[in-house]
Parts: sequence; C-alpha cells; structure tokens
Amino acid sequence: MARPRRSEHTREALIAEGIEQLSMYGYHGTGIKQILDEVKVPKGSFYNFFASKEAFVAEVIHEYSQDLLQQLNGFLQQTNSKLGPTDQLRSIYQYSLAKYAESQCQKTCLVGAMAVEIGSESDLCRQAMEHAVEIWLAVFTSIFRRAQEVGEMRSDISAQQLASVYWSTWEGALLKMKMAANTQSATETMELMLGTLLKAPA
Amino acid sequence: MARPRRSEHTREALIAEGIEQLSMYGYHGTGIKQILDEVKVPKGSFYNFFASKEAFVAEVIHEYSQDLLQQLNGFLQQTNSKLGPTDQLRSIYQYSLAKYAESQCQKTCLVGAMAVEIGSESDLCRQAMEHAVEIWLAVFTSIFRRAQEVGEMRSDISAQQLASVYWSTWEGALLKMKMAANTQSATETMELMLGTLLKAPA
Repeated sequence: MARPRRSEHTREALIAEGIEQLSMYGYHGTGIKQILDEVKVPKGSFYNFFASKEAFVAEVIHEYSQDLLQQLNGFLQQTNSKLGPTDQLRSIYQYSLAKYAESQCQKTCLVGAMAVEIGSESDLCRQAMEHAVEIWLAVFTSIFRRAQEVGEMRSDISAQQLASVYWSTWEGALLKMKMAANTQSATETMELMLGTLLKAPA
Repeated sequence: MARPRRSEHTREALIAEGIEQLSMYGYHGTGIKQILDEVKVPKGSFYNFFASKEAFVAEVIHEYSQDLLQQLNGFLQQTNSKLGPTDQLRSIYQYSLAKYAESQCQKTCLVGAMAVEIGSESDLCRQAMEHAVEIWLAVFTSIFRRAQEVGEMRSDISAQQLASVYWSTWEGALLKMKMAANTQSATETMELMLGTLLKAPA
C-alpha cells in the first residue's frame, strides 16, 4: 500500500510540538499521543513521519540545536558592535532564563533534560545531543575567545575550557531553577561565573 | 480490615531499590512494579508502605540525602588529619565518578535526575530535593570555609557561594558524563574548578 504523501508542514509541526513537550515533561513523561493530539494529526500517521519515538526525539534535538544556533548567531550579529563579549554572554543567559520563567520554570534545556533521562541509552539521541553540545560550545568558545582578546576574561585556561565549564555550570543552574521554580539562584550562579570566576584578574 | 504488619525491613529494601532504579531510569522510567519485583514484594502491598509513588520518591530522596550525609561525614572524619580540604573535595568527586562509572555512567545523582524530570511539579519531592541540596551545601560550605582559612581557595566570594557554584558545575558535569558514557569530561571540569577557578590566586 502506498504511504500517504508526507507533508513537510505536519512534520515541522510535530517537531515544534516535540520541542515544547519534551522540554517540559521529559522523554518518558511525553507521550506521542499527546503530541499528535496537540497537532491534530491522526494517531496512525506518526510512523509515516518517524521510524520510532527514539528517531523522533533525535530529530527534535537536532532541530532544537539548529534553532538555537540560528538565534545565537542572529543575536551576535545584531549586538557585536554594541555589546562587549561578556555583556553578550550576560544577555544570552538572562534572555534564556526569562524565557524559562514564562513557563513557571517548568521548561528547561532540552539537551540537559534528555541527557539525564535517556543519557547514552539511545545511540541516535546521544549523537544528536553531543552534536547539539558541540554547536553550543563552538559558538560560546568564539565569544569567550573574544572576551579573552579584549581582556575581559581570564587567559590562564583556553577559551574552549572556559566555554566547557560555563556549559556545565549553566546546566546545573537550570536544575536549581526547576527545583526552586524561580530563576534567582540560577541568576546568581551565572553572575558569579561571568563577574568573578571567569573574569580576568584586575 | 487490619492492615498487614508493616515490616521495617521490607520498607528499607523498597527504598534502597528505589534509590538504585530512580538513579538509573529516572522518575517516569521507573515503575513501582519493577521495584516490587526486585524486592519480591507482592504488588498489592506497596500502598501499605507508601501513600503514592510521589510519597515513595520523596522518601527515597530523603533517605538518599541522609546516606550521602553519613558517608560524607564519615569520610571527613577519617581524612581531616591526613588531607587538606581541597584534596578532600577532589577525593569526593573522584570517588563519586568512580561509583557512577561502575554502572557504565548510567546512574547519576538522584537529586539532579529528579529535579530535571519532576522539578517543582511535586511539592513533596521538591521539598525533599531542596532539603537534600541544603544538606549537601552545608557540608561543602564547611569544607570550602576550611579551604579559604588555609589559603587554598579564593576568598573574594563566600564559602557558601563557592559551594553553590561548585554544586551547579558538578550537576552539569554529570550530564556530560551521562551523554558521553564516560567520566573524562566531568573529571576535567571538576579539576578546572578545584585547580584553577576556585583556587586562591598564587
């Protein structure tokens, strides 16, 4: 039997809804049925778009990281002439926390959430997560490098190391945010990183 | 009808198995049935011990943090005369990573895992998590304070702030560990914290 024509629009809508729900409810807490209901797609047609829930989630992670990359690059282009690199980093974390706050801090970083729940269980998702973190690290390494060049950030470790430890602290700060259902502690932690620990000595 | 006599032993076994499975599979990935099967307790009797899955998980988190506290205090008592505070912190993270590595990095910090998945959805679990983090922070603040007193750690921020940012970085490093299924990146990150970022300037 011929498969129904795959609509790119439906596929995109499923992925967008996947980003929403997986960021909020996690891997096991998100059912395919909920996503299909929200997008108003009949139950049977999911497998016309994706081979499995695992394959779907891997694509969701991929799409999420591409969106993030686009947003980050757009923001950097817009602000490169106006903000120093440390202020760009500050704006990025503040913007992200403000977005999470809109969901009463129920939503969080999709990659962090998936890493905790399914970790390396799924090779497909693991590759998508590692790729997402690589993209994130590449962008942030370039910002930290500029921050080192203009003397804002410490230079006794590499820009890549700065970005890597900043990523870990960010993900941990988001756990605190979810636990407290507010962004106060996460804000303090990120400010401590940018304003003190990673800063170039006076 | 009188309830069957509650056996403290069975209750403890259920909680111990809960720590195992929840650290490995997360909240939604862990079924009560799996836990009962493992402990060989008949299905119906779970609710003689716990009012709900939520109440069970809150007790598991509580028990987990008490275990951790006992282990930490035992370790500190044993090593206070032999190791400096920074070396104690180093031993603690290395020991923890080695334990996680035994499960091929599938197991992780129970509190971090629960925070991502159920965050502040459950007030009962949220309180248990916050209490667990408070206990952790109190112990680590005291180690960081000693490290400041002996001049090992920077003193431009408080011991409590050092402990707080160290916690966030640790939880984020554990995400990387789960994603990579090895402890290399987590080790590098924690060493960067202890050996460089939090260290007192030379």
